[in-house]
Amino acid sequence: MSSSSAVAFARQNHPRFLDELKALLRIPSVSTDPEHKDDCRKAAEVLLAELKRIGMENARLIEGEGHPLVYADWLHAAGKPTVLIYGHYDVQPPDPLDEWLSPPFEPTERNGNIYARGAVDDKGQVVAQVKALESLMAANGKLPLNVRVLFEGEEEVGGETIEKYVASKAADLKADFALVSDTELFAPGLPTLCVGLRGMIYTELEVRGAKTDLHSGMYGGAAPNPFVSICQIIAKLKDEQGHILIPGFYDGIIPPSPEELAAWKSLPFDEEEYRKTEVGSKQLVGESGYSVLERTWARPTVEVHGIPGGFIGAGAKTVIPAKATAKISMRLVPGMTPQKAFDLYKSYVEKIAPVGVDVEVRLIHAGDACLIPVNNRYIQAAVRALHEVWGKDTVFIRSGGSIPIVGDFDRNLGLPSVMMGFGLPDDNIHAPNEKFHLKNFELGIVSLIRFLEEVGS
Amino acid sequence: MSSSSAVAFARQNHPRFLDELKALLRIPSVSTDPEHKDDCRKAAEVLLAELKRIGMENARLIEGEGHPLVYADWLHAAGKPTVLIYGHYDVQPPDPLDEWLSPPFEPTERNGNIYARGAVDDKGQVVAQVKALESLMAANGKLPLNVRVLFEGEEEVGGETIEKYVASKAADLKADFALVSDTELFAPGLPTLCVGLRGMIYTELEVRGAKTDLHSGMYGGAAPNPFVSICQIIAKLKDEQGHILIPGFYDGIIPPSPEELAAWKSLPFDEEEYRKTEVGSKQLVGESGYSVLERTWARPTVEVHGIPGGFIGAGAKTVIPAKATAKISMRLVPGMTPQKAFDLYKSYVEKIAPVGVDVEVRLIHAGDACLIPVNNRYIQAAVRALHEVWGKDTVFIRSGGSIPIVGDFDRNLGLPSVMMGFGLPDDNIHAPNEKFHLKNFELGIVSLIRFLEEVGS
Repeated sequence: MSSSSAVAFARQNHPRFLDELKALLRIPSVSTDPEHKDDCRKAAEVLLAELKRIGMENARLIEGEGHPLVYADWLHAAGKPTVLIYGHYDVQPPDPLDEWLSPPFEPTERNGNIYARGAVDDKGQVVAQVKALESLMAANGKLPLNVRVLFEGEEEVGGETIEKYVASKAADLKADFALVSDTELFAPGLPTLCVGLRGMIYTELEVRGAKTDLHSGMYGGAAPNPFVSICQIIAKLKDEQGHILIPGFYDGIIPPSPEELAAWKSLPFDEEEYRKTEVGSKQLVGESGYSVLERTWARPTVEVHGIPGGFIGAGAKTVIPAKATAKISMRLVPGMTPQKAFDLYKSYVEKIAPVGVDVEVRLIHAGDACLIPVNNRYIQAAVRALHEVWGKDTVFIRSGGSIPIVGDFDRNLGLPSVMMGFGLPDDNIHAPNEKFHLKNFELGIVSLIRFLEEVGS
Repeated sequence: MSSSSAVAFARQNHPRFLDELKALLRIPSVSTDPEHKDDCRKAAEVLLAELKRIGMENARLIEGEGHPLVYADWLHAAGKPTVLIYGHYDVQPPDPLDEWLSPPFEPTERNGNIYARGAVDDKGQVVAQVKALESLMAANGKLPLNVRVLFEGEEEVGGETIEKYVASKAADLKADFALVSDTELFAPGLPTLCVGLRGMIYTELEVRGAKTDLHSGMYGGAAPNPFVSICQIIAKLKDEQGHILIPGFYDGIIPPSPEELAAWKSLPFDEEEYRKTEVGSKQLVGESGYSVLERTWARPTVEVHGIPGGFIGAGAKTVIPAKATAKISMRLVPGMTPQKAFDLYKSYVEKIAPVGVDVEVRLIHAGDACLIPVNNRYIQAAVRALHEVWGKDTVFIRSGGSIPIVGDFDRNLGLPSVMMGFGLPDDNIHAPNEKFHLKNFELGIVSLIRFLEEVGS
């Protein structure tokens, strides 16, 4: 375990760090919900003030059309590399509220974890980054490398503001690599770097039938039912084995290398344990011929998140709703592009639309898949630092999730990303009872300190 | 047009009758919504007071587990038949609220109609019945026949209280026929008696996958998605031509007689006009080989009303919901029974359930289909009265809707029903902007007066 003076500072100040995390978690910065617009800004302002307080310079909010970016830098380590540190202060909606054991925006410690919406995705990891910087600055009066910090508040809604900023202000973000803390360890205590992400398209499929809601007794049998039609369309998007039926959807996919597949096979992963403890369904599903890790990391998928509209109250209402809207997303893998995937999906849906209804397919947001080469010096520095802190060799994994900014950093800024995150597979991100393991918050800060020291040494 | 003194009374008092209807429409007696429990009782109490005021006897509320029945009688017409007058004071939920041009519980006159939830289904028709009785009593000091009134407040939620009461208290409801005013004219100005109703089963299909909501990036491809599964199940309930795929579902259906089919063909019905003005979809749907009237009156159907659960907010949430619940109903026709239809449906769904999910099928409520012979003296009296008021021969139609009590009156009390209603096909029942044509409210009262006089003559 490291004994740098910055690490010592972090250990001494840990109770305060945790209090500061809790304060940030109390702000319901739900970026998807217009009602929480002010809360998102409040979270941004808390981080801004904190970056100023610890000695970062040029700290400011960068305004876009949605929630602001938080920027700060410290660029006095002449001759040293520059890191662009990324995280997001926005969180997913907390619903369904009634499944939370403690309120989502009242952080609560239980069983060595802190429970709250955003605990690990991503406020806990953002605070870990800030506390690593604070510890380095407080212990040494300076940082071991040049640092730019860029936090966003729209990660859960597509990240439009940061995407535009990165695309248009490359000169203001000059750096050598990006540090992204929004991922997880493969298993408790196992240092992990994520080197691949799925891309995604998030869409809405709207199906309209009659001009108004109709009585299902009077009109049932002659009037189109958008809910039935939308189900018929969705049932044709993938078969019951999880194989996507959109023509051309799989074309051009780049499969994992034999070496990567071999490495995945050696990971400590028990499918039955995963089914029981993480998923909890009676059976896992998906494409035959692919392991669970391949299915979730390296294969595209289609998911339906909800079908608003119609009658959803208690009891019975005999109505043929005038329209139904399904929230449908697709995960993409290397070799696929969001635009092509969306075009294929859209024209397929228009082709298979049942008689009597109009369909409209809308793209809500999109992000590219990405794959990071593991042989660069920043990844290697991370491996050394993680070994020192966790006492183990790092495993390289992918994530089935999407962090579109990683692709933007690559394409627009030419930066390789180091995705160093400290979540756990059972942290319930995007679900009720989201948590961050307190030990991982602590070791995360130490790991980030040692990583930045290692890169700057 | 009739000139009985009761009719004259009705004409003189029409403005007051309309005000009294408005007062009843202002009570949001939404029986499906537990929050409106008190409003349902209030509507019952208003009717109770009104029946007492006009001289009905033994007026009382009959309590069940849900909303009370309203009962009253007047049994002093020795040697005359006894009618059991039925209607319901409960209404459908008003949602979607934003599509109403005037508030659903603030009755508003526009274009010769009165707009409000319940205007025609069924408060307007219940008030017409009461006002017919008031006019007869006021003009003559007595009624031309023996009358029992039985109003319920659970028609829109399955009618459990009245069903139990009718099944257990046959002796208290001794009558010769029932008068049910909850139907519509086939076309404006065309006197109509409804002689057939579809039955129904209203169900919930619940599909459960993972033990909790999961991140669709992390788990997509391996975890079951209940929304996808429920769509796959629904897509197998009927094909895109509207043919129901549940094995055995059509067995035993009694088709309409050749005479009835011939009569339907001569009705003033323009499919294209119906599509455009009533449905407003780009095409009608349904089983080939059957006319629209056959599809909606004499063929079973499956409808989906909504699929609660999952993410239905604005924007994007990348979640695999732990469960999805579809509200699904089926209309039944003569020859089918609710229990058999439900059993066939349930075992089919259990058989076709996709891997990885658990399914549960629940019956919310049910009602039998019915068919009334047209050659009884009450139907014939109705035909005479309607001809006098409307100047035209009555057409006999069926309705695709369900009025379960008509089957109960038949089975438990041995009563034939006269379904004399005054709605119009475009009255938007169960939809936003429900209305009652004011002229039909007025002629409806006169028709009911003359019908009761005709039966008692």
